[in-house]
Amino acid sequence: MNVSIAGLGLIGGSLALALKTRHRVTGFDIDASTRDAALAAGIDVVGASDALLPADAVIVATPIAAIVPTLEALAPRAGTAVLLDVASVRAPVEAFAASAPASCRIVGFHPMAGRSGSGFAAASAELLELRPFLIVPTVRSDTAAMTLAGALARDAGGEVTVCSAAQHDRIVAVLSALPLAFASALALTGAETVDGNLAALSGPGFGDSTRLALTSPDLGSAMLLANAQNVRGALDRARKVLDEVDRAIAAGDFAALNAILERAAEARRRLS
Amino acid sequence: MNVSIAGLGLIGGSLALALKTRHRVTGFDIDASTRDAALAAGIDVVGASDALLPADAVIVATPIAAIVPTLEALAPRAGTAVLLDVASVRAPVEAFAASAPASCRIVGFHPMAGRSGSGFAAASAELLELRPFLIVPTVRSDTAAMTLAGALARDAGGEVTVCSAAQHDRIVAVLSALPLAFASALALTGAETVDGNLAALSGPGFGDSTRLALTSPDLGSAMLLANAQNVRGALDRARKVLDEVDRAIAAGDFAALNAILERAAEARRRLS
Repeated sequence: MNVSIAGLGLIGGSLALALKTRHRVTGFDIDASTRDAALAAGIDVVGASDALLPADAVIVATPIAAIVPTLEALAPRAGTAVLLDVASVRAPVEAFAASAPASCRIVGFHPMAGRSGSGFAAASAELLELRPFLIVPTVRSDTAAMTLAGALARDAGGEVTVCSAAQHDRIVAVLSALPLAFASALALTGAETVDGNLAALSGPGFGDSTRLALTSPDLGSAMLLANAQNVRGALDRARKVLDEVDRAIAAGDFAALNAILERAAEARRRLS
Repeated sequence: MNVSIAGLGLIGGSLALALKTRHRVTGFDIDASTRDAALAAGIDVVGASDALLPADAVIVATPIAAIVPTLEALAPRAGTAVLLDVASVRAPVEAFAASAPASCRIVGFHPMAGRSGSGFAAASAELLELRPFLIVPTVRSDTAAMTLAGALARDAGGEVTVCSAAQHDRIVAVLSALPLAFASALALTGAETVDGNLAALSGPGFGDSTRLALTSPDLGSAMLLANAQNVRGALDRARKVLDEVDRAIAAGDFAALNAILERAAEARRRLS
């Protein structure tokens, strides 16, 4: 099908690279050098966002703050095109969809993928392989639009999970935002404690635990603030576990501490 | 030189494998099948801990609770052998050293290395390569013993840092114990939130952030409890950062949140 992509950064660029083997992909980015890089990588590029339509689907993969404005600009002219967006927080898109033209079809299309690099230079089809794609209906979704979103997610190499906007935002608060907040707190506490010596003293465990602190602060801040209520709830629940750990240590209670760590190890083993 | 190793688990076994190319290594483990596995891997093994002496150095690499008792058994018969121990918390060894025979030489020898596997089966020389080795004098250390410890650490592939017992315990509280507590809290909060769906929904970021939750609960509990005061201090400092993050989110303060994440990213970049 004809798939247009607005925004060719890490996620949009990776989607373009992953989908172009099976679909006719057309991309646009507001940055001219990004457009050049995408063109050099074999992606058809247009010079204005207007030229992304007509299409069977338009994937909006701009920075988070530009997603609703971009959907707003596309919606009145979308015709039969399904609008997909990669927003990692669904509430704002959900709110927009409620007021969008009745003819519009809008579906959340969120690949849970990332790396510390950013922009088209860091994009690759492999980034999306076997990653969870959360497909999130809005009030402007129908069965055909959901089916199309699922098919594109699979064509990009992903594994599809369908969930509501509320579920999505609760999930990403815990699986993306909370780990970022924790990694940042660890990195800062580590740096403050060992001063200039962090690189010499820390091993791979500390490195893994703090990797997400390399997330772009702009992206991270936007992600945490747009999903404030769920993120604060997740922080609160995680801090209750830390309180439990602290109490067991203060009491010198080996059995209690061991039970917490054993439950955590059991939870983590389900991932590996 | 003649190097004996008491305890051939992940760390002792890795040390034996790493040191045997340059030294005459003799190992002992209380577990017969571990002794057999070490023997099969080309390590000279003895059937009783008594037979570890005489030697130029004995490395005590038993589980943490057995380290002081093992040092206690070796100390009266050590002669000129330098006793090294891999305890990841120094205060108990420090206390023992103060009451050890005056002729004894005891040096802390702590490779900051690990993986989720355990036992000799998970041991390998590569585990120690380029890892920080914290060399910690006790009141029973002298220059020759410190020099020997440093040389063995380098021969095992490590990078030597010398620090006091107090510094050591503050450092590991932040670089090992705190990340374990955080990883465990994340894994539990994640599992509780997404229920049976954690594996399907989480990406590599969540996986990295929670990897240390796979640490053996027995080892983890011992490490946290033996270093209680420093670990509680580290937890307290890290929770203050989380409080700051929470306040910035509650206030919708992008600039404040961005500043925290930027400082954290800057700290983490020094590692990579």
